[in-house]
Amino acid sequence: MTKPHLADSVCPIDRSIELIGDRWTLAVLRDALHGMTRFNDFRDHLGVAKNILSDRLHRLVATGILERRPLADGRSEYVLTDKGRELSVVIAAIRQWGQRNLFDEGEEMTRVVDKRTGKDPARLVLMSDEGDELGIEDLRLISPNPFVSRITTKA
Amino acid sequence: MTKPHLADSVCPIDRSIELIGDRWTLAVLRDALHGMTRFNDFRDHLGVAKNILSDRLHRLVATGILERRPLADGRSEYVLTDKGRELSVVIAAIRQWGQRNLFDEGEEMTRVVDKRTGKDPARLVLMSDEGDELGIEDLRLISPNPFVSRITTKA
Repeated sequence: MTKPHLADSVCPIDRSIELIGDRWTLAVLRDALHGMTRFNDFRDHLGVAKNILSDRLHRLVATGILERRPLADGRSEYVLTDKGRELSVVIAAIRQWGQRNLFDEGEEMTRVVDKRTGKDPARLVLMSDEGDELGIEDLRLISPNPFVSRITTKA
Repeated sequence: MTKPHLADSVCPIDRSIELIGDRWTLAVLRDALHGMTRFNDFRDHLGVAKNILSDRLHRLVATGILERRPLADGRSEYVLTDKGRELSVVIAAIRQWGQRNLFDEGEEMTRVVDKRTGKDPARLVLMSDEGDELGIEDLRLISPNPFVSRITTKA
């Protein structure tokens, strides 16, 4: 991965994509949200090279998204922290976009449903304080210091 | 980028991260959602190498997320399609996670606010049909064919 220094950016997107803007990281997070915890399970399910998986798990532990816990068998399990569990909304948003845009009508797909009802969750929508839907035309970007923003997003 | 063939996966996350699971792609999408359309503006703002930016823009056009439009000056502009604009929820979810988890109390950050009120949008929450908040414990994964799912997510 290319690694510009975005950790100090004033933009929350920059800081976030420094940690999770990577296909393998997002795939690991999806599986972790589905309850997966073991190195070999991630490797088998993702078909990812061990060194890549090891790198991604280490980063996720280092940034407080996963916690590594030793197990009785000498191995470890990787469990989402609260910070990691909060990414469930990001993963859900990606899922909904994929469901709506990347499948043909009637094509089979995995779904994540409400356990009680078996129904799909409601579509995620950005809303105002008062409950009105906000489109991108309704939003304004506010930068504390545009000059700093430009510098710190440089590679 | 490593490129396993996820385009046929039954998992919407797999198909989505094949297209957008990349830091530069996500940074371009953020800037496009803020109204940026020109190659040089993306390059200057992101500080990204021209060949990387060119690759990411081409992919986004090829997958129908951006549309390339010729301009009178012989250059092009890159404009979000409806499919691309729908990614605003994904970018908003990433922003909210970053705001909540990657900044110290009182630290300055860019914000995207409701134009009319100047207030932050409400927090994105996954909800049931009936409007109850759904945590990850409330969800169940349903796979049309777990065996196929495992094969098609392999690199």
